[in-house]
Amino acid sequence: MSAFTSIAGDPLDRNRFPLDDWALVEKRFEPEDLGVTETLFSVGNGYLGLRGNYEESRDAYEDGTFINGFHEIWPIQHAEEAYGLARVGQNIVNVPDPKVIRLYVDDEPLELSTADLLEYERRLDFKTGVLTRDLLWRTPSGKRVRVVSKRMVSFADKHLAVMTLEVTLLDDSAPVQISSQLINRQDRDRELAEEVQAESGIADPRKAEGFHRRVLVPQVSSIDEQKGRIRLGYRAAESRMTIGTVVDHHISGPADIVTESSISDDEGKIIFRMQAEAGQTIRLEKLASFHTATRVPARELIDRCERTLDRAIDEEGIQYQFDEQIEWLEEFWKRSDVEVRGAPDIQQATRWNLFSIIQAAARAEQQGIPAKGVTGSGYSGHYFWDTEIYVLPFLTYTSPNFARNALRFRHSLLPAARKRAGELSQRGALFPWRTIDGNEASAYYAAGTAQYHIDADISYGLSQYVGATGDLDFLHREGIDILVETARLWADLGFWLRQNGNSTFHIHGVTGPDEYTTVVNDNMFTNVMARFNLRRAADAVEETRAADPEAYAELVRRTGLEDDEIVEWRACAEGMSIPFDEKVGIHPQDSRFLDREMWDIEHTPLDVRPLLLHHHPLVIYRFQVLKQADVVLALFLQGEEFTLEEKLADFSYYDPITTGDSSLSAVAQSIIAAEVGYQDLALSYFREAVYVDLANRHANTADGVHVASVGACWSALAAGFGGFRDFGTHRGDEQWSFDPRLPEEWEALTYRVTLHGTRVRVDLERSSIRFTVEDGDQALTFTVRGEKVTVGPNSPVSVALKDQGPLLEGKPRNPAGTMRADGTIISATVPGRW
Amino acid sequence: MSAFTSIAGDPLDRNRFPLDDWALVEKRFEPEDLGVTETLFSVGNGYLGLRGNYEESRDAYEDGTFINGFHEIWPIQHAEEAYGLARVGQNIVNVPDPKVIRLYVDDEPLELSTADLLEYERRLDFKTGVLTRDLLWRTPSGKRVRVVSKRMVSFADKHLAVMTLEVTLLDDSAPVQISSQLINRQDRDRELAEEVQAESGIADPRKAEGFHRRVLVPQVSSIDEQKGRIRLGYRAAESRMTIGTVVDHHISGPADIVTESSISDDEGKIIFRMQAEAGQTIRLEKLASFHTATRVPARELIDRCERTLDRAIDEEGIQYQFDEQIEWLEEFWKRSDVEVRGAPDIQQATRWNLFSIIQAAARAEQQGIPAKGVTGSGYSGHYFWDTEIYVLPFLTYTSPNFARNALRFRHSLLPAARKRAGELSQRGALFPWRTIDGNEASAYYAAGTAQYHIDADISYGLSQYVGATGDLDFLHREGIDILVETARLWADLGFWLRQNGNSTFHIHGVTGPDEYTTVVNDNMFTNVMARFNLRRAADAVEETRAADPEAYAELVRRTGLEDDEIVEWRACAEGMSIPFDEKVGIHPQDSRFLDREMWDIEHTPLDVRPLLLHHHPLVIYRFQVLKQADVVLALFLQGEEFTLEEKLADFSYYDPITTGDSSLSAVAQSIIAAEVGYQDLALSYFREAVYVDLANRHANTADGVHVASVGACWSALAAGFGGFRDFGTHRGDEQWSFDPRLPEEWEALTYRVTLHGTRVRVDLERSSIRFTVEDGDQALTFTVRGEKVTVGPNSPVSVALKDQGPLLEGKPRNPAGTMRADGTIISATVPGRW
Repeated sequence: MSAFTSIAGDPLDRNRFPLDDWALVEKRFEPEDLGVTETLFSVGNGYLGLRGNYEESRDAYEDGTFINGFHEIWPIQHAEEAYGLARVGQNIVNVPDPKVIRLYVDDEPLELSTADLLEYERRLDFKTGVLTRDLLWRTPSGKRVRVVSKRMVSFADKHLAVMTLEVTLLDDSAPVQISSQLINRQDRDRELAEEVQAESGIADPRKAEGFHRRVLVPQVSSIDEQKGRIRLGYRAAESRMTIGTVVDHHISGPADIVTESSISDDEGKIIFRMQAEAGQTIRLEKLASFHTATRVPARELIDRCERTLDRAIDEEGIQYQFDEQIEWLEEFWKRSDVEVRGAPDIQQATRWNLFSIIQAAARAEQQGIPAKGVTGSGYSGHYFWDTEIYVLPFLTYTSPNFARNALRFRHSLLPAARKRAGELSQRGALFPWRTIDGNEASAYYAAGTAQYHIDADISYGLSQYVGATGDLDFLHREGIDILVETARLWADLGFWLRQNGNSTFHIHGVTGPDEYTTVVNDNMFTNVMARFNLRRAADAVEETRAADPEAYAELVRRTGLEDDEIVEWRACAEGMSIPFDEKVGIHPQDSRFLDREMWDIEHTPLDVRPLLLHHHPLVIYRFQVLKQADVVLALFLQGEEFTLEEKLADFSYYDPITTGDSSLSAVAQSIIAAEVGYQDLALSYFREAVYVDLANRHANTADGVHVASVGACWSALAAGFGGFRDFGTHRGDEQWSFDPRLPEEWEALTYRVTLHGTRVRVDLERSSIRFTVEDGDQALTFTVRGEKVTVGPNSPVSVALKDQGPLLEGKPRNPAGTMRADGTIISATVPGRW
Repeated sequence: MSAFTSIAGDPLDRNRFPLDDWALVEKRFEPEDLGVTETLFSVGNGYLGLRGNYEESRDAYEDGTFINGFHEIWPIQHAEEAYGLARVGQNIVNVPDPKVIRLYVDDEPLELSTADLLEYERRLDFKTGVLTRDLLWRTPSGKRVRVVSKRMVSFADKHLAVMTLEVTLLDDSAPVQISSQLINRQDRDRELAEEVQAESGIADPRKAEGFHRRVLVPQVSSIDEQKGRIRLGYRAAESRMTIGTVVDHHISGPADIVTESSISDDEGKIIFRMQAEAGQTIRLEKLASFHTATRVPARELIDRCERTLDRAIDEEGIQYQFDEQIEWLEEFWKRSDVEVRGAPDIQQATRWNLFSIIQAAARAEQQGIPAKGVTGSGYSGHYFWDTEIYVLPFLTYTSPNFARNALRFRHSLLPAARKRAGELSQRGALFPWRTIDGNEASAYYAAGTAQYHIDADISYGLSQYVGATGDLDFLHREGIDILVETARLWADLGFWLRQNGNSTFHIHGVTGPDEYTTVVNDNMFTNVMARFNLRRAADAVEETRAADPEAYAELVRRTGLEDDEIVEWRACAEGMSIPFDEKVGIHPQDSRFLDREMWDIEHTPLDVRPLLLHHHPLVIYRFQVLKQADVVLALFLQGEEFTLEEKLADFSYYDPITTGDSSLSAVAQSIIAAEVGYQDLALSYFREAVYVDLANRHANTADGVHVASVGACWSALAAGFGGFRDFGTHRGDEQWSFDPRLPEEWEALTYRVTLHGTRVRVDLERSSIRFTVEDGDQALTFTVRGEKVTVGPNSPVSVALKDQGPLLEGKPRNPAGTMRADGTIISATVPGRW
């Protein structure tokens, strides 16, 4: 039996979340899962993110406003010290919250949890990029009031957020009061939490890595009631990063509006009072601007905010911002949309996923892409391998410029990565497992620093980008440094074993992607990816030398590269030990993986899952049980290196012992399931992935969007079902290929890939696959199931399909209880609870 | 080449530390290594310990006063949490310091670092158990003053410490002032340290695990100037343990002595002022009493202290205390002395070692024996496997009642150990790797909780005690529970691998004694010791059933023991996988140890040793390199299971890659080196061990005595050179044996072992070994090199020896660079520093 339990049917309550092709819509206020919907209705642009908190801020799980990379540091206190452990913790900061707008009618506050709501709708529109809330509220005195609020974070202007509130009394006039705020919650909420804790004696577990001191040191706090502007500027106490925030207000409605204001270090407030007539609409426009820096004084950042607002309001106006947002998204969808015909729920979920990636990545620019984007403080706002392996493929093939930014950010971390390699007694560069500022922030090395594979993951993402775009200039002048320093790391980390005249290259003491088995020898994923890394580095150096001697000379000057190294890298790659067990006929996850006892997942009660929350790491590490795809991920990323038979054998072995306790698992499982023929299972896994947040499948969507899973959904669509592969392109060859697997339940699948600047639309139907150049004037060549196809502008090509690949019934079965070829009987156990 | 570098010649400066058979003597004040001499001149009785601080307390590394088991707790903050990690830290507390007596002559203070000292001697006398300091001081005004102070912690009365100060003006009269204090340094010094840190910005690394809040909450502080008593009582803030301390003063000398006193929460002080005449001796007697408890109010403990003092002073008098101390030690040395003829430096060092064990163990009673005894706060005052494996053999064979106390303490931890096993998903009991109160306090599981072997170590110590003493009553009624619960753990922890019709039992995911390779499969030491544990538990249960049906019924009632379990334990023991590599011809330390690259210790610069202070754990774990003996220790403890050839092969392989970075290594290496014939190397290792503290070989003697190493020196003497083995006695057979290895440099070695209540003196000379019953009326039978010998009271037996065992030249060589039988070439590397 597969360890994976699929979602039965549509996991969403369609009365609450009705189907809509181009929006996520909610029709009922539900206080039970505020944290989840705050995440789902977040708006952001990769730089600035506003969680989907209600304007009133009374009903909230976490009032969150985040700026990618704006963080505070703190000294990690290890319970037992050791040389080279991460020393400095890094946490994203909850920056000043501009979302709060409170409404009082007849002095009665609008509070959703108690309000009599005649109508309620939230809509996050994927085409307009605007979150709209539309309420019909009957006040305690029986007056009906329509309250419509909009919120967007501009894709076009990374520093700008726009909010509007429209209030219309439908029945009768009343005194109306609107209180708009800007609040430093990072410090105010900490103080509140500490008060609560002091009273209750209960620590808030969410504050475990939190700060017990002031994080944002006030630098500027001022208010201009006349202009309607509140300004707060801070410096983070330890990281010394600075932030400026200015909000701007314009109100229209009754002629007589009385304004009051107040300001303190942590809160600015403007209150508008008026007598509103029935039928008259009061409209508040609130714009917020954020600027952050590492060395610029907060005062200067405040000036930048003012200029942003002056332009946005006075020169362009608010409608211009909404229009620009639509235009920006129109371009995005042209490049990126995926259409799933015959499965409207999947269509909607898919678009929410794609929209979420772009909200995490669009304007990340000189920062990485955090594991939760800018939708929450989960994983402390850190960057992981998620970026290169799960998010970059989508960006590379649809918005290559964003991929380039992410890779240039990695490049900027090279000095810290070189230093870190030295701390680990190694040459070259070792990128941090998790970081914001480039320093390793993983305090648990067994499932952190030991994941050396991040070096190869970054090289892979870089190579994929170069292969897809042909951006050789970037490769020769910057990217090449990453390849050289990571290849050096691998050559130095591994060692040669000479046995009976044969030499093999081994990499010991590392952790692969699966964190349920740590610090092992010859992890298959790591070795396969390191081999790629070594080869690619050698190739790229030689290509650079041939194509751009000047860039090559610069490279040698920068890195001290010597010719012998190229020879060594090729030797290491060719000698790389890739574990394969002849008797069992599979690739063991590491050299001794098959020695381990097998965990009987099928008979493990649900109340002890996920395993990591109910078992000591030592218990989990002792078993054949996976948190996430490991070998199976290698079968996808380096699929050209393995036969279909090998893939089937490996997938069949690992699938039943893969818990999917990590959200990074389902997509890889889906892609390889589709390839080998477990097509129902592939679709189940995809549903798991595409609903990971929408259905809160890991019970922690409240902490933010699972950006890696969300990003990888595109890979599942394009590569898994769409059959798109780019094998060889990383090496500079152009060998794009298509071998599709359209799920039986779907009528058709359409997706786009941009290859060397030319955008091709792929229309997959049951009996054909059709390629159309949508943009660009180049002809492109690739193969469809081995046959060469060339598509040019205005000359679409259609290829007939006799089937959708191999088709296997059911799921792989757990090998427990069976006998291997060598007579070993696999026993499976459920570790006890005594 | 061996990884071990021996001490060249006598490591001590004999001008400063002259040879003395029965004392450690220091003839020169040396401020450079205060921390070391404070440890070396500590006095203690296993309950109470006073570091060798100078009375003036001006020149000190750490003013320390410790009570075994008196500790504070604190919540461990893991940088990254996981299920089942240790939650509560435990730290021994620096209890109120009674040692301070300050002297002023002509208002000039005696301060050693600036004083003009005409004579200086410190003497820790192993026969009187008294530390004496004798100074001749020339005051700044040129007057000579003899100052003699004595200090002892009573072995006879565990709650009592006695101090005297005698001051004699030799030349001229002068005003003299003596200020005697009792100080809570735990909290006062913390506040001072924090002030220093606030000013300097530099954290004191020794405070890393320290407390940043008040630990001792004042309960009692009073002073009775008339009676000369100061009383301080506290409750530890979190552990809620309580402590009472009372000091008592008697002064004699000039007729007119003016007394002043002061008291605060953290300090009591009595000042004596007088005009002293030349030739007249002023004598201050200061007695201190300590009582501690877990639930008794501090006020009541103060009463107990008063009663202790009333009796000690008023009923018995101070001379009685000194006499009792001598008498107690006379008995101790009768039972325990080891004489080394022909090596006076070794003789002195050996006696300091034996004296240090008894200072750590004598009155530990309902507590364990901490890694640093009561001489320092190193290792937080925790109990480790050190007790059973390194300290217990000496106690078992010379002071069995103290061994019984230590084992009964372990028995009292069973409930916590059962709970801990459950947290690790296991049946039975898992003893904590380090603890004071029974809960796991090891925050780094890879070199802590993963050391499951502690279960077998405790069973081994228990079985050795029962074998040596014949104390079956203890076994049947208490000790048996330990055997049953640990056997259960092993049976549940391991698993069966059925292969080609054979079934073998494997234990995965554990760390052996060597902490330079962690979380491995089938660690040889662990499996060998677990096999012993399983067998011994099965035997002991059956013996109990046969010998004491009532005790057996009680056992079944307490533990729910079922007959099937005995069968299972025997099966697990017989099926236990003991890794052996046919090609290399050795026992690998774990199933994949030989796959690892070899660390070239010979060419590793000294400035990166010990390795753990200069390399990330992941780097160290990747290599064949040992912190301490692992397989080699198993060859000693379970020597009956291995042939001499196997021992030689294993020792030769591991010795060159054993760094000895742990002080637990040298003794095991010494014993097996002696057995296999590397006799010079054996002596070198022994010198390393016997001087570990005296010569500060690990550069951390300042933190306290290395109790395990100190204890194991007796094993090196009796077992390593004396050739004593007790194989089989753990199983209930009596098979004591002797196969001696007298070092060439020594003339003779005499040691004692008490077997079933009869004390035998063993006199080993070059050509004979002689056995004499010193106490007891039983005849004893054992073998000498295979021949049966019976010795009875008044009938000594002498056996001629033709040699001292096999003799090999030099040291084993590092196998690096050589080719194994299977064609594998071993390469060795020094991990880089980049």
